[in-house]
Amino acid sequence: MTRRYVMATRNAHKVDEVSRILQAAGAHVELVPLPTDAPDVAETGATFAANAMLKARSAAEFTGLPAIADDSGLCVDALNGMPGIHSARWCGQHGDDAANLELLLGQLAETPALRRDAQFVCAAAVVDPVHDTEHIVEGVLEGRLTDAPRGEGGFGYDPIFIPHGEQRTTAELTAQEKDAISHRGQAFASLAPLL
Amino acid sequence: MTRRYVMATRNAHKVDEVSRILQAAGAHVELVPLPTDAPDVAETGATFAANAMLKARSAAEFTGLPAIADDSGLCVDALNGMPGIHSARWCGQHGDDAANLELLLGQLAETPALRRDAQFVCAAAVVDPVHDTEHIVEGVLEGRLTDAPRGEGGFGYDPIFIPHGEQRTTAELTAQEKDAISHRGQAFASLAPLL
Repeated sequence: MTRRYVMATRNAHKVDEVSRILQAAGAHVELVPLPTDAPDVAETGATFAANAMLKARSAAEFTGLPAIADDSGLCVDALNGMPGIHSARWCGQHGDDAANLELLLGQLAETPALRRDAQFVCAAAVVDPVHDTEHIVEGVLEGRLTDAPRGEGGFGYDPIFIPHGEQRTTAELTAQEKDAISHRGQAFASLAPLL
Repeated sequence: MTRRYVMATRNAHKVDEVSRILQAAGAHVELVPLPTDAPDVAETGATFAANAMLKARSAAEFTGLPAIADDSGLCVDALNGMPGIHSARWCGQHGDDAANLELLLGQLAETPALRRDAQFVCAAAVVDPVHDTEHIVEGVLEGRLTDAPRGEGGFGYDPIFIPHGEQRTTAELTAQEKDAISHRGQAFASLAPLL
């Protein structure tokens, strides 16, 4: 039986990506988008996990449905793990991928290739108000940053991130290749059996 | 006898501030600015101290004079200590105080008052090619960040930084008040007896 979950995000890319990952993982779920009149959630947590849980709880409370949420970002070693939980609003405004990416490259302009290691991190949360359960899992993808964007796929910082063992950026991988290794792929594949 | 040092910076604010601090500390030194044809130094160090030393060595080598350098920045707890060594080029371009400050406030827009602790840190280096000596000292000023800029004094992030025990930002203090407590004041006061 297919069960309906609300996905606590306004990012259409994330809904597509998570739907694809859960389907590939064999989860029989239907993801519905967050209602447009759902309240904005202040992401005041200090970690990906805390913010994912804040978003999932808010969506579950508003809709009465079980809710899935994702909080993810890019952690750059040379920036002490930043942008981290601030990834989506690194340029000071929420969700401007091009500005975030350009800013990060500018900040790292003097950082040599050997010090450009980074990780994509994803915390995936599910809150079920019917069964009164909460779960949280994390996935990590290790890699390094390029000097300039490459590739048309993915979103966010994908065009400047090369996973370890790859020559291509995550924006140059196919969706299936990316899902198989990505932070979000790992997190939601771990979550799938719990849904 | 007054001894001449080259100050390894192109920031006129820093030359003024350091001259004032050293004079108040009783050091008999004359600071001369970095010659305009001096080479740019790639600040590739991972710490304030490493970058201050890179700048001082380069200036001493180019001029043959003993050289003083400063590397300083703002370390924000909620950003894992960033902007840190990237403070002067946080917006992606070097030395645009207004853009750096606006960006930082935007990044911290969802960070509540209780989590806005920060430190100003300064590493001060002196390299003397005649006596073949190198010294490095650090100063730290603890405080917290405001939501909006206040005050006309100082430079850099001064308008959004309130030292612990103060109600005013470092841009609202007099130069003498600021020097008495600041990261740069502490560092160069420690350095003064070595000059």
